Amino acid sequence: MGLEAFNLKPLSRSNINISPNAIIGEGVRIGDNTVVHDGVEIGAGSIIGSNCTLGEPLTASYSDSNYVQPSTVIGKEAVIRSHTILYAGSTFGAGLHTGHHAVIREHCTIGDHCSVGTFGDLQGHITMGNHCRLHSSVHLAQGTRLGSFVFIYPFAVTTNDRFPPSTETIAPMIGDYTQIGVHAVILAGVHIGKHCLVAANATVNRDAADHSFLVGSPAVLKGDVRELVDAGGHPLYPWPARFDRGMPWKNDL
Amino acid sequence: MGLEAFNLKPLSRSNINISPNAIIGEGVRIGDNTVVHDGVEIGAGSIIGSNCTLGEPLTASYSDSNYVQPSTVIGKEAVIRSHTILYAGSTFGAGLHTGHHAVIREHCTIGDHCSVGTFGDLQGHITMGNHCRLHSSVHLAQGTRLGSFVFIYPFAVTTNDRFPPSTETIAPMIGDYTQIGVHAVILAGVHIGKHCLVAANATVNRDAADHSFLVGSPAVLKGDVRELVDAGGHPLYPWPARFDRGMPWKNDL
Amino acid sequence: MGLEAFNLKPLSRSNINISPNAIIGEGVRIGDNTVVHDGVEIGAGSIIGSNCTLGEPLTASYSDSNYVQPSTVIGKEAVIRSHTILYAGSTFGAGLHTGHHAVIREHCTIGDHCSVGTFGDLQGHITMGNHCRLHSSVHLAQGTRLGSFVFIYPFAVTTNDRFPPSTETIAPMIGDYTQIGVHAVILAGVHIGKHCLVAANATVNRDAADHSFLVGSPAVLKGDVRELVDAGGHPLYPWPARFDRGMPWKNDL
Repeated sequence: MGLEAFNLKPLSRSNINISPNAIIGEGVRIGDNTVVHDGVEIGAGSIIGSNCTLGEPLTASYSDSNYVQPSTVIGKEAVIRSHTILYAGSTFGAGLHTGHHAVIREHCTIGDHCSVGTFGDLQGHITMGNHCRLHSSVHLAQGTRLGSFVFIYPFAVTTNDRFPPSTETIAPMIGDYTQIGVHAVILAGVHIGKHCLVAANATVNRDAADHSFLVGSPAVLKGDVRELVDAGGHPLYPWPARFDRGMPWKNDL
Repeated sequence: MGLEAFNLKPLSRSNINISPNAIIGEGVRIGDNTVVHDGVEIGAGSIIGSNCTLGEPLTASYSDSNYVQPSTVIGKEAVIRSHTILYAGSTFGAGLHTGHHAVIREHCTIGDHCSVGTFGDLQGHITMGNHCRLHSSVHLAQGTRLGSFVFIYPFAVTTNDRFPPSTETIAPMIGDYTQIGVHAVILAGVHIGKHCLVAANATVNRDAADHSFLVGSPAVLKGDVRELVDAGGHPLYPWPARFDRGMPWKNDL
Repeated sequence: MGLEAFNLKPLSRSNINISPNAIIGEGVRIGDNTVVHDGVEIGAGSIIGSNCTLGEPLTASYSDSNYVQPSTVIGKEAVIRSHTILYAGSTFGAGLHTGHHAVIREHCTIGDHCSVGTFGDLQGHITMGNHCRLHSSVHLAQGTRLGSFVFIYPFAVTTNDRFPPSTETIAPMIGDYTQIGVHAVILAGVHIGKHCLVAANATVNRDAADHSFLVGSPAVLKGDVRELVDAGGHPLYPWPARFDRGMPWKNDL
């Protein structure tokens, strides 16, 4: 057990409510007014902001006297910013970052080094590989599946119901390295390949092959991302080639 | 008076600040750090999450020494999730559900069994019938009027000012059973009929008759919802016909 | 030092955590569970809601033992609504208003009488003149520059990276009096002139001269705002002319 008061001088932390059945790793720091529920495990070196709720009990707990709280595992060195709510029953790899006010519902399986920005809204049962980055205000429908290195920008949304309301839903799948622009809409059941670029405000209503550059509402295939060049004529995509070859993706290009 | 500590073991609730002039029904449970202001009435069996503010005083209270706090009525069996803010002066029927971080401003009149999702933003003076469901991140302009069984999906917005900024505003009206897709915009003063379907990312700038299927920006009438069929050729709309005939709408089809 | 308990009867304020190195002006009122960090100065007559964090330490503070907290200056008569987070290192003029759950990151320079609505998300290093109004759920990319009297409506976004992800970013600039409609997207590096009107759901991907009326995705120049008239044939823009000539802009028309 390694809980210590958040070391920011000159505030002494107050009103932290931690279940005796939570497991707090070495060197974890927790801010004011945060609640850590039963069955939560926080990895060593993590920083938890103020006013958070970790291990929020599922809706079933409201009325089911036999409710069993599922475990919640937060990997080492997480940074969970203030007013974030993580439901019980999810597993997060190492290096999770959240922005402020993020909400992540139950039964998500998130890899290492992923981030969910301010006002992020993950509706549960979501899977993510490693190194995904959701900027602010991304809404992912229940069941959405992301590969690794998927980056999604503000107000983008995935949906899981084409003709609402329905009792059967099917969520989208987005491949490795794909970039989803601001205000993009990915409709129910769509599969987007690897290394794609979805433009700002596009509405994607059918599957897209690897390297697709998608534009418009409904989105059309504008070209292959490998045709996009910068002002100097250098190719822009696949984007990992623009960064250091020593990065984690060096074997994937 | 029926206040009891939120019964989730093993946390004992703390730092709940309830006005002596609030009325708390039988069996109500309230989470940590929640504030309940003067004049709030919470119906029996309701569950209030942590970090909420119920009966938030109106802006007039900041400077008006004669400010009178209007009453706030929350019907029975509400589920108000954490970090929700309900202003004073609204009335909610039975079975209200809110997501996390929702904000509902003053003088709303909301029927029974309505829900406002996470990051919902209701700007006040809004009316809703019964069984409306706002998914996450729905923004309703001040004065918006919804019928019953209206479902609205993430990032959809109603507006009340066509050529901003104006001193006179006129909000939209949306009829029973209508479905408003993700990222749809309903412009000021528009009346949308019953049983309509507004597609994802549509911008509706004029009135629409019952059963309209609206697509695009600006939206055009793509057809009649009754022409839409599923993969098996079965009609999709009016959608209540796809659900159990014993549902509340049995006399409305 | 002028701190007093928030005077709303019948609640007595509790659990307020204020750094001894913060400066609290005369007559400032602060709500429950709010944290005020080191180096924050709050102007006289300000009202701070509950569950706020003022002077949130920068990310560098998590690991840098030599971290120096920059000062945060909030001008007089601010109204900062509940659950707002202001990072350290920004300067706000007089009369700042925020909605609920707003997040304003570090090193912003904001003029007098500006407002940032509920769920507002300012990514830092942003400049604003005076009298800007951001309605709910406006997301401004890091480095965005606004003139004075710029009004921006819900779910509008500025971006700073045209072909993401990039290491170099360039943010937009928006001129005085311009109105940005709901769901509008202003792409990286775009300069929008003064007195423009950007329609709902428009995607602006290139510069726009003063008085432009921009519509569509990608946006096209639909006309000059001075051609727009109301039902009575009166010009709608420049909009300050529709308001009292005694307003602050009287010398700017």
